[in-house]
Amino acid sequence: MVASSELAPFTDPLYRAAVVDLLGAVGYGEISAIERLTEDGKMAPSLEDKVALQGMAAAQHAKLRPVIERLGELGVEPFTAMEPFAAAFDAFHAHTAPSDWWEGLIKAYVGDGLANDFYREVAGFLDAQTRDLVLSTLEDSGRADFVVGRVRAGIETDYAIAGRLALWGRRLMGEAVTQAQLVAGQRDALADLITSGHLQGLDFTAIGDMMARITHRHVDRMARLGLAH
Amino acid sequence: MVASSELAPFTDPLYRAAVVDLLGAVGYGEISAIERLTEDGKMAPSLEDKVALQGMAAAQHAKLRPVIERLGELGVEPFTAMEPFAAAFDAFHAHTAPSDWWEGLIKAYVGDGLANDFYREVAGFLDAQTRDLVLSTLEDSGRADFVVGRVRAGIETDYAIAGRLALWGRRLMGEAVTQAQLVAGQRDALADLITSGHLQGLDFTAIGDMMARITHRHVDRMARLGLAH
Repeated sequence: MVASSELAPFTDPLYRAAVVDLLGAVGYGEISAIERLTEDGKMAPSLEDKVALQGMAAAQHAKLRPVIERLGELGVEPFTAMEPFAAAFDAFHAHTAPSDWWEGLIKAYVGDGLANDFYREVAGFLDAQTRDLVLSTLEDSGRADFVVGRVRAGIETDYAIAGRLALWGRRLMGEAVTQAQLVAGQRDALADLITSGHLQGLDFTAIGDMMARITHRHVDRMARLGLAH
Repeated sequence: MVASSELAPFTDPLYRAAVVDLLGAVGYGEISAIERLTEDGKMAPSLEDKVALQGMAAAQHAKLRPVIERLGELGVEPFTAMEPFAAAFDAFHAHTAPSDWWEGLIKAYVGDGLANDFYREVAGFLDAQTRDLVLSTLEDSGRADFVVGRVRAGIETDYAIAGRLALWGRRLMGEAVTQAQLVAGQRDALADLITSGHLQGLDFTAIGDMMARITHRHVDRMARLGLAH
């Protein structure tokens, strides 16, 4: 049940619809990430690496449950709330199917990093309960450390892969931005929320600034791998 | 670390090798089940059903960790201990790739049931610590209940699938027995352990009885689905 003290922002139907959209997107993103991480684990050079990717998938599953529960508390069928985001996530994955282990590993790291940055930014505009829930779905640094260690070692062994993987990182970023923009254009709740000025500080300028920060963090992330952005 | 009170049976190298083999097989079986459950979830008719299969995969992952730790305690590289079983499990999955959601669902249930029955039987011959570990990897009844509910509802809606799925259950059983026999024939530790008479009550007659019990339970399991064995 939603505590009565938390109900206030949800009496605004625009806000409620936007939160349902956000959690629906987070939920579908997690479901598709579970599928892709496990699939990409098939390309792992060792059983240990495969199990590492399966572990990332299992961690995503654990974070999916509270999102499903919260959508139910908000009075919507959780999987129905996720459906509008299926096409965008499916297209992202279809357009960025890794051709080898390295591309899969970087996709896990970059895709996760972008999603975390985006959700962390958005969480700042939300009510406390939704914010805490969204922040709880963010990945800890263990996954990033694993990928960074593996990729840096891989590049040391075979420097020729660095150029290809740097290009791959740019393609992932480009595809993520494209799909995010397509989704934003299709979801009226989000646009209405922004233009209505309901949420303190959330306007199109703020979104532009947010995208700039997310892009900068992507560049930092690629640099950690030892790759040009 | 292995408690000293538990070390006694492991001073017997035959016993130790057989336990390493058993845990290696359990571990590889779990890794391949995680991969297959997630893959078969792609055929789910709804997001909810897909998430149910992903949840089974996540539960398998949680059970894999203590197996990996125990193999390490026994002084072997866990993933090296699993490798000898890769071919058999991979062949089982390659020969039983489900062609639709129903076949995938029944495979999750039958495959899991057979593995549970086999491990439960074998556990009875083992030292307490290994027995408890093996028993902890067995699936609870939640998964079976989910599959039974879904398959029975599916057969009610479309009785034509019942005959095909009954055949499918027989094929899964046949393939599992074939692969188990191939593995048994290749692993000297197991055969040596049995012929040596080291373990009270474990001989070829006992194994024949065990196989009979496992077969009976498979028949019961198919009957629960409303399918002829």
